[in-house]
Amino acid sequence: MPELRKDPISGRWVIISIERGKRPSDFISPSQKRRAGGFCPFCPGNEHTTTPEIISFRPASTSPNSQGWTLRVVPNKFPALQIQGELSKKGEGVFDQMNGVGAHEVIIETPDHQLSLATMPLRAVEDVLWAYFFRLSDLKKDFRLKYVLIFKNEGEIAGSSLEHTHSQLIALPIVPKIVKEEMDSAKKYYENKERCIFCDIINQELSADKRVIYENDKYLSISPFAPREPFETWILPKQHESSFSPPDKSFSSFAEILQRTLRQLDKVLDSPPYNFIIHTSPFKDEINDYYHWHVEIMPKLTKTAGFEWGSGFYINPTPPEEATKYMKEAKI
Amino acid sequence: MPELRKDPISGRWVIISIERGKRPSDFISPSQKRRAGGFCPFCPGNEHTTTPEIISFRPASTSPNSQGWTLRVVPNKFPALQIQGELSKKGEGVFDQMNGVGAHEVIIETPDHQLSLATMPLRAVEDVLWAYFFRLSDLKKDFRLKYVLIFKNEGEIAGSSLEHTHSQLIALPIVPKIVKEEMDSAKKYYENKERCIFCDIINQELSADKRVIYENDKYLSISPFAPREPFETWILPKQHESSFSPPDKSFSSFAEILQRTLRQLDKVLDSPPYNFIIHTSPFKDEINDYYHWHVEIMPKLTKTAGFEWGSGFYINPTPPEEATKYMKEAKI
Repeated sequence: MPELRKDPISGRWVIISIERGKRPSDFISPSQKRRAGGFCPFCPGNEHTTTPEIISFRPASTSPNSQGWTLRVVPNKFPALQIQGELSKKGEGVFDQMNGVGAHEVIIETPDHQLSLATMPLRAVEDVLWAYFFRLSDLKKDFRLKYVLIFKNEGEIAGSSLEHTHSQLIALPIVPKIVKEEMDSAKKYYENKERCIFCDIINQELSADKRVIYENDKYLSISPFAPREPFETWILPKQHESSFSPPDKSFSSFAEILQRTLRQLDKVLDSPPYNFIIHTSPFKDEINDYYHWHVEIMPKLTKTAGFEWGSGFYINPTPPEEATKYMKEAKI
Repeated sequence: MPELRKDPISGRWVIISIERGKRPSDFISPSQKRRAGGFCPFCPGNEHTTTPEIISFRPASTSPNSQGWTLRVVPNKFPALQIQGELSKKGEGVFDQMNGVGAHEVIIETPDHQLSLATMPLRAVEDVLWAYFFRLSDLKKDFRLKYVLIFKNEGEIAGSSLEHTHSQLIALPIVPKIVKEEMDSAKKYYENKERCIFCDIINQELSADKRVIYENDKYLSISPFAPREPFETWILPKQHESSFSPPDKSFSSFAEILQRTLRQLDKVLDSPPYNFIIHTSPFKDEINDYYHWHVEIMPKLTKTAGFEWGSGFYINPTPPEEATKYMKEAKI
């Protein structure tokens, strides 16, 4: 019999459909391995075709927007939001609107067109995380902005329009609905129990050991109890930490578990398209006892999302306990 | 400059990205026109290959599960939930689960493989709506069930695995998160204003006349103020009505506006894949003054859903006022 499971943070229910039980090989999606050829605006030599860089990691001997970089952050050429202008809000009867002040940036993770976050040197993954952190710290100073969403779309099916590996950030004058919901729910749990709900989940998962994929000194990766999609995977700091930041000024442990998780997914699901999102506390509430930052990685394997995001109701044909086994056994 | 808009019912914000402003011809998605050929379990003559029918519309001279029907409702062959068994709930530390009691049914809308809801005779559309209503009324009697989600996935990209036109329903032992949120939000508005928020929106839309696509005697179709996707369209009863039901025992006006809307979408977007969902009050609160049933139709045009449903945050490149113009001008 199928099982209904509730995610304790968001309150959403999912159906774990065991009858439809699917193995990794049942998911046919185009492998996201890099192809060569064609013009790429993110490749070295084409720096002039992007908007001018905001920051880059490059030797002091090279100039901005020229070759020699190892990582670049540039404004999105077709930004969803604009950094210029004052924030103004207005109502129109029952409706609320504001102008689209914010930022939309692209993190070009490596100059090498053939690499991905899973295959680049570990040190380069650390650099990507530092770039996220630097941009977040900088955008935080802008009093108009309330939240920065950092995310990655890997593969065309997951919404990426360019093959060259990159992440994005969108800085917003509002706190997005799902972040607000997670914060409210975690706060409520804390008021009731005086414990962080994520810390409780981590302790329970470590002691049950049915959904823990991997842990290193500082982080663990799990298949969440009520995953929306097959092989949904979360990475969380083991110690309470409310906002995305480098513990002891190092991202090495986080880079290690992030890259390992992406390699496991690549191995088990043949380089699937995926999205990941960094879930972190809003600026105004950066340090708190109730919210626990984490990354949610979602391989894009099923096509039913249309109905599911319309109803807030998910059918998942792969139990997370099964997904965990496949992930652990992956020879990476 | 882009605009941020808030949906007053769900509280979600969307970015209306005017710089990225997209016209209908910018959306390239495979046309969902029917192809012939190949075995189809929903075609007449193949009744024995589906699970036995729950109800069908057919002449009295024909037997169940044989030819001669004009509409059939059958249990889904791979159900997400099962009708047998007692509902049992249990906890596992911080987690909640229950067994998957419920129903998952398929409404085969016509015997003709070449037709769609947009192209079938209007009378057949009415029959589809009656089938929804009969099944809803029947499932309501099962005290284990709290909600019935009625939806349609049109086209493979929208999650449909069979080309022959059909809708689905899932009967649930819980009220889904998005339904609960909409109910709570509408109730709060009512407590504050003693008016239905949907009624207020309808009045405002009719008087502003910027986003009204069409109205007949009983219903109107609009592009919502803060649409998640280009050409998202809602159909609502003009008079307050909390649950999906036939006014004056007739679905003719609703069939007319539903089919017209689907024809407009087919014309403007070249038969796009789409999802629609009927939003209606839960069984236990079927008649109320604050919630207003409606249908949300969502063409599946963009690929960014992965990030967007992960963050609850939407970027829409087509302002609803533009979409309304295209829809109104469609020669159907």
